[in-house]
Amino acid sequence: MEIKGARKGNNDLLRHHNRALIVNLLRRKGPLSRAELSRLTGLAPSALSRLSAALISQGLVRELGKTPSPSGRPPILLGLNPDYAFSIGVKIEARRVLAARVNLLGQVQEEDAVPFDDPSPGAVLPVLEQTIRSVFRGKVLGIGIAVSGFVDSVAGVCLFSPILGWHGVELAPPLEEHFEVPVHVENDVNALTLAEARYGAGRELSDFLCVTVGEGLGAGIVIGGRLYRGAFGGAGEFGHTLFDPRGPRCRCGERGCLEVFASDQFLRREADALGLSSVEALAARAREGDPAAGAAFRALGENLGYGLKDLVNLLNPEAIVIGGERTSTDGDLFIPYTEEILRAHAFAGAAERVRLVRAELGEEGFLVGAAEVFVESFFAAPLG
Amino acid sequence: MEIKGARKGNNDLLRHHNRALIVNLLRRKGPLSRAELSRLTGLAPSALSRLSAALISQGLVRELGKTPSPSGRPPILLGLNPDYAFSIGVKIEARRVLAARVNLLGQVQEEDAVPFDDPSPGAVLPVLEQTIRSVFRGKVLGIGIAVSGFVDSVAGVCLFSPILGWHGVELAPPLEEHFEVPVHVENDVNALTLAEARYGAGRELSDFLCVTVGEGLGAGIVIGGRLYRGAFGGAGEFGHTLFDPRGPRCRCGERGCLEVFASDQFLRREADALGLSSVEALAARAREGDPAAGAAFRALGENLGYGLKDLVNLLNPEAIVIGGERTSTDGDLFIPYTEEILRAHAFAGAAERVRLVRAELGEEGFLVGAAEVFVESFFAAPLG
Repeated sequence: MEIKGARKGNNDLLRHHNRALIVNLLRRKGPLSRAELSRLTGLAPSALSRLSAALISQGLVRELGKTPSPSGRPPILLGLNPDYAFSIGVKIEARRVLAARVNLLGQVQEEDAVPFDDPSPGAVLPVLEQTIRSVFRGKVLGIGIAVSGFVDSVAGVCLFSPILGWHGVELAPPLEEHFEVPVHVENDVNALTLAEARYGAGRELSDFLCVTVGEGLGAGIVIGGRLYRGAFGGAGEFGHTLFDPRGPRCRCGERGCLEVFASDQFLRREADALGLSSVEALAARAREGDPAAGAAFRALGENLGYGLKDLVNLLNPEAIVIGGERTSTDGDLFIPYTEEILRAHAFAGAAERVRLVRAELGEEGFLVGAAEVFVESFFAAPLG
Repeated sequence: MEIKGARKGNNDLLRHHNRALIVNLLRRKGPLSRAELSRLTGLAPSALSRLSAALISQGLVRELGKTPSPSGRPPILLGLNPDYAFSIGVKIEARRVLAARVNLLGQVQEEDAVPFDDPSPGAVLPVLEQTIRSVFRGKVLGIGIAVSGFVDSVAGVCLFSPILGWHGVELAPPLEEHFEVPVHVENDVNALTLAEARYGAGRELSDFLCVTVGEGLGAGIVIGGRLYRGAFGGAGEFGHTLFDPRGPRCRCGERGCLEVFASDQFLRREADALGLSSVEALAARAREGDPAAGAAFRALGENLGYGLKDLVNLLNPEAIVIGGERTSTDGDLFIPYTEEILRAHAFAGAAERVRLVRAELGEEGFLVGAAEVFVESFFAAPLG
């Protein structure tokens, strides 16, 4: 529900509408005085006073410190109480579960991580419950689960996750029964994309891609300011587009997927070849100036650049936001090469104009984005 | 402008609105009696009579034959006069210009084609003018030009066309000056996509791709029922996504583009290798049961299938509409293999559900789609 302006009248529906209008103004613009709210909503000062008193007694709005005023007494500011309600954002990674309590402004209040060895659904479900329980406090609107792979958000099922080896794993039904709040399942990259669109590098963008480089390679697609999930909820599997038909087999079962050439999987193979035990060791070597280690990151960057060139020719976004675990820690080692390839090889007309920017939210973005669906629906009807 | 329902009142704006409502109902539903129009619009019979009389005297609506009625006298039907105004749809191919006069129902009334040898912009422009002039008759709303490559629709410029070898060719300005009507430039595959979305295989679809196989390989992207042109107007360059990094160089300058493996360019190389003079000769051999010729079409079909698998993993459409010159004539020789690969290799969840359907409009679809932008804007304000 997009709230456009105040309406006059005296029934419950109008009071509801006008209170929602005030709450959304405070959310978007930050603290405001009653006079400013009156001007912005068009509501009479007396009506505004009544409505704000109700919101304050509900606990959703609170009075903040006074601002200095050149003349007369400083006005009291009204602000949203961001801790009035929370959503739980969860991310299921290859070997651990992360969960966070996220407030109404998309801020993480508390976070927990629990590792697991056995990725079978029966073993992960108790870990999920435990991690969520440790941050589950206050008025919880719902639980959003971000998971790698192809999900059916409506049914709350992970249909296929190459990284976890999952096929058709029901997530929402058991968690809804356990916690007695709604549970929403989202592809992990889509969750990050939602967070970047709302709070991060995509705030001012209308058509953009959010690409993540980490254990896997994925993309979220925003078109006209809205996340595009595809007709069946599985859009954005950028990592599972063809890069080299003669390449190694991918975890998804296909040969030569881009993910094999532009993710931690690639860097691990390169580290192995150099006798190094981990991607972190490879990155340390590259930072020390070791040419072979540097070349490994450069190759990843160039491979990603060719993949992004395809995305730009196909989708012609105004910007590409690059995030994900590997970008957070080592983006400087490969993104310059990515950009070089992209600019040199994408079609003229897009190659010069598309912007390449870093994600702003880091790892927490996945959790904030997973929770975001409940924040959005709260502000659509913020009197629950 | 989407017209939702009749409004009451007596000023010019309301009359305008209500006449537009009647015209759009006749466009969508076909001929209707005054009584049916009164019921569908909510307008009183007397108001409806006045409005329809004005539309009839304008020439935009006409009285049609009576329909049999079980009781009483048969009602007179009112129908749109589809030839009240026309748009000119143009397609610039590698070696000829096609132009058609298209009526308000997207029907081609007259068509002309003029070949050319020299694809330089200075040589093609006079051919364009000549071809358009030969079908330019009646009340012409505008001229829509479909051209292969990356276009800037706002400026009316073809920024880059590998097939024509064009860089930054201004099309709209000289033609607008010559014909004194608005000129719209559109990527050719986007034009076909618009036509299929409105009149063809995409009529009932919301998220679909229209893929064309011919001299080139392209895609149009429909999301939420609307053509997605990308942030800079160049979306859909499916043919210029990577298929094999070791593959031959493409006309666009890159190496291993899918177009090199799934277009007439591929079939010509295969024909050459078999000592045949043309793709048509190759198709004839394949139809006679020649295994090598059949294998060439099969290889094209499989290559296209791998490309479509990437599109499905990335965009997760509900359907893919396949059209283009080669599909029109020889689709039966390769589409079965395309579908086989697509179903076997796209991600579970999309592989079974995505529908693969043939375009319905054939070659005329490019012309109808090029003209469609003027038809749409006419019906948004049909009293011009």
